[in-house]
Amino acid sequence: MSLTHLDEKDRPKMVDVSDKSLTERVATASGVIQMSKEAFQNVINEENKKGPVLQTAIISAIMATKQTSNLIPMCHPLNISGVNCDIDELKDDLSFKLWVTVKLKGVTGVEMEALTGVSIGLLTIYDMVKAIDKGMIISNIQLEEKRGGKSGDFKR
Amino acid sequence: MSLTHLDEKDRPKMVDVSDKSLTERVATASGVIQMSKEAFQNVINEENKKGPVLQTAIISAIMATKQTSNLIPMCHPLNISGVNCDIDELKDDLSFKLWVTVKLKGVTGVEMEALTGVSIGLLTIYDMVKAIDKGMIISNIQLEEKRGGKSGDFKR
Amino acid sequence: MSLTHLDEKDRPKMVDVSDKSLTERVATASGVIQMSKEAFQNVINEENKKGPVLQTAIISAIMATKQTSNLIPMCHPLNISGVNCDIDELKDDLSFKLWVTVKLKGVTGVEMEALTGVSIGLLTIYDMVKAIDKGMIISNIQLEEKRGGKSGDFKR
Amino acid sequence: MSLTHLDEKDRPKMVDVSDKSLTERVATASGVIQMSKEAFQNVINEENKKGPVLQTAIISAIMATKQTSNLIPMCHPLNISGVNCDIDELKDDLSFKLWVTVKLKGVTGVEMEALTGVSIGLLTIYDMVKAIDKGMIISNIQLEEKRGGKSGDFKR
Amino acid sequence: MSLTHLDEKDRPKMVDVSDKSLTERVATASGVIQMSKEAFQNVINEENKKGPVLQTAIISAIMATKQTSNLIPMCHPLNISGVNCDIDELKDDLSFKLWVTVKLKGVTGVEMEALTGVSIGLLTIYDMVKAIDKGMIISNIQLEEKRGGKSGDFKR
Amino acid sequence: MSLTHLDEKDRPKMVDVSDKSLTERVATASGVIQMSKEAFQNVINEENKKGPVLQTAIISAIMATKQTSNLIPMCHPLNISGVNCDIDELKDDLSFKLWVTVKLKGVTGVEMEALTGVSIGLLTIYDMVKAIDKGMIISNIQLEEKRGGKSGDFKR
Repeated sequence: MSLTHLDEKDRPKMVDVSDKSLTERVATASGVIQMSKEAFQNVINEENKKGPVLQTAIISAIMATKQTSNLIPMCHPLNISGVNCDIDELKDDLSFKLWVTVKLKGVTGVEMEALTGVSIGLLTIYDMVKAIDKGMIISNIQLEEKRGGKSGDFKR
Repeated sequence: MSLTHLDEKDRPKMVDVSDKSLTERVATASGVIQMSKEAFQNVINEENKKGPVLQTAIISAIMATKQTSNLIPMCHPLNISGVNCDIDELKDDLSFKLWVTVKLKGVTGVEMEALTGVSIGLLTIYDMVKAIDKGMIISNIQLEEKRGGKSGDFKR
Repeated sequence: MSLTHLDEKDRPKMVDVSDKSLTERVATASGVIQMSKEAFQNVINEENKKGPVLQTAIISAIMATKQTSNLIPMCHPLNISGVNCDIDELKDDLSFKLWVTVKLKGVTGVEMEALTGVSIGLLTIYDMVKAIDKGMIISNIQLEEKRGGKSGDFKR
Repeated sequence: MSLTHLDEKDRPKMVDVSDKSLTERVATASGVIQMSKEAFQNVINEENKKGPVLQTAIISAIMATKQTSNLIPMCHPLNISGVNCDIDELKDDLSFKLWVTVKLKGVTGVEMEALTGVSIGLLTIYDMVKAIDKGMIISNIQLEEKRGGKSGDFKR
Repeated sequence: MSLTHLDEKDRPKMVDVSDKSLTERVATASGVIQMSKEAFQNVINEENKKGPVLQTAIISAIMATKQTSNLIPMCHPLNISGVNCDIDELKDDLSFKLWVTVKLKGVTGVEMEALTGVSIGLLTIYDMVKAIDKGMIISNIQLEEKRGGKSGDFKR
Repeated sequence: MSLTHLDEKDRPKMVDVSDKSLTERVATASGVIQMSKEAFQNVINEENKKGPVLQTAIISAIMATKQTSNLIPMCHPLNISGVNCDIDELKDDLSFKLWVTVKLKGVTGVEMEALTGVSIGLLTIYDMVKAIDKGMIISNIQLEEKRGGKSGDFKR
């Protein structure tokens, strides 16, 4: 196999998808942010009130999925059909796991949209908690599942 | 300590920084993308030619630092003074490690700008290599170092 | 009825529209800006020349319809088919009424696009006239008419 | 008085502010959205849980203040120092009143930023409630207060 | 013939394309930047290494095609299907000629996307070389070829 | 001289300007669009009415100056102080010449902002006239004058 985003002169290109078929596509990605006990506790306590940190993360994740093609140079602009997010509170790991699922009826996959949503959502948590803990680590940003399209389904 | 980005009604706010002093600030962040041997080899081979994958990643990282306040809801808009990137090829780990350093003469830190640059740069590598390997994992997105500002320096 | 934009955990989501049918949709919105006699007269006088205030308002309204999904968090990105604007000069009320009509061949309505166009267009008038009158009031931003789509037509 | 945003040929211009003095500036704007009893009750009920409609409105208002110069053609780009929002529940009027306060240490006022935040925040409420009530009306978008700068303070 | 982008009151409008047929469309545009011998030589020398100037130009050209409808007021937002770029080194003229080809399966042509890509790509070269030569001139930005759509094919 | 935008590994970087002095800077750029007689006459005739083509071009030019750092990868984000545009009608050449002057009190020059404004303004004319003439050519996009900053003044 070779890199699809380069032309014969090794110049970057946006791959031509005009011949691909219009199908329903779904991609789910996830990622984790780990923090100190004090930081984790603060977010959890807020969650018991109105949860503004996690809610802000979800809103920024949804909005970021719509910016994917402005951020990732070779990504095609897409009219996303729907986005769902969820957050797991992993108390034993002092972590939050953010899930983003993106749907599209279109000609290209939406992995990048789901992964971008996860990345920006986790950075939003980092931003809102960084006054307490600057050492937080974001990890395991990965594609969980992908359906639709010629290259076949993917399930981690 | 408590969450600085919430007001007394637990509503998100953009923290007022108009009283903070104008100083020189630097933040360095890093992150890693791990991939299959085949995928890694493909990127390395290109690197021996014109390196379009890694170069595109660096350009998207620099451009993303400038989009930080549009992506992270409570981030202040900033006029970044400079950005440097570097990529380590970690052959034993089949990984690339992306470093982004952001400078600012201003009133707030630039951690979020550096972290956003790293995140989008790594997603750009994912995008350009995903036809070969969809199982790549992005990890260890973290602040490496921060200088300037009242909250003191940080060094991992 | 309940709020469609929340999931079962009360988290915001972008509603899935991948099953909705592709039809022709039209939405018209309007809104009004009221100002002092001196301000109104200045705009009218310009209108007699080249009308740059009202023309700038119309251009910004059209451009804003294209930014709707970047501004309203749960809005779907859409490829708008056409936009028309009109402005009524309401001399008795010292007001301008801005109308924006948006068309789309697509799967979701374009009310938000029309309303966003009206809002930004009126703010543009405010901006260009505020040196004369800071007390201007923007009111009656409302959907006038909507056609196409499953939820039925709407006519105020 | 005459229109400051036009040059001697009546062409729009972005006013030169390079000679204005750097001072602390604050602007507060407000606006109201009125809806049916059923719609109002739905938002209030959610507010008793996690308040995602009003929280989403606040987040979008804050983010919109940062887009002002991209939306309003003659607005100067600014590095906003801080943003605060509040929402009054006006039960007798079946309305929500959104307040946005923007601070800046800079050379131009931030009225437009506050007004843009209010407009987009209210549109976000409209968007999330429109499945229940399409007849909602947004009104009284207005500057409440302005401090700092040569043109003097303003208080409605 | 008359100007299609104006309504009967001479107000700008975004032309309604909802009735146009969905076909495959291609547009190629080109443009040239001419510089001093020293500047030209510097870019060429880099090209022999990793070519970052020309690679950055190509990446910015591709990204700019996706911003066309945000920049050109009456342009329709489009989901571009693919973009290819190429650069000719015109040693006798001390010039680089940038070619951008844009594809779309859609209802409007993509001339503006190709022309915008060329313009921004050439400005990127200007930016990266301007420390050596501020007198560079960008010329001959023009449509080379256009296929698909009712108005017929165009070939310079 | 060598290319300032590359680091010692030939990777693109955003040049560090945190040590540069804050001075008043001005840059003027210009460019020309040439068209058929029929197209030129149409624009001129409109100019005699409300001039929407040329007015739209000016507005888009002003707005584009504010997007420069989002379009040109290595450009610093700047808070422009003012923008003025002018258009010469060159009847003998069937051309319009667009002038854009940008001012900044800041640490970097504003050549790129002026040149980007010119480029997008001319593309806007192309867009609004292309139904009449697809063969229009944009040329002579160039820096006319630059003042302020360490590298000295420039006058073509």
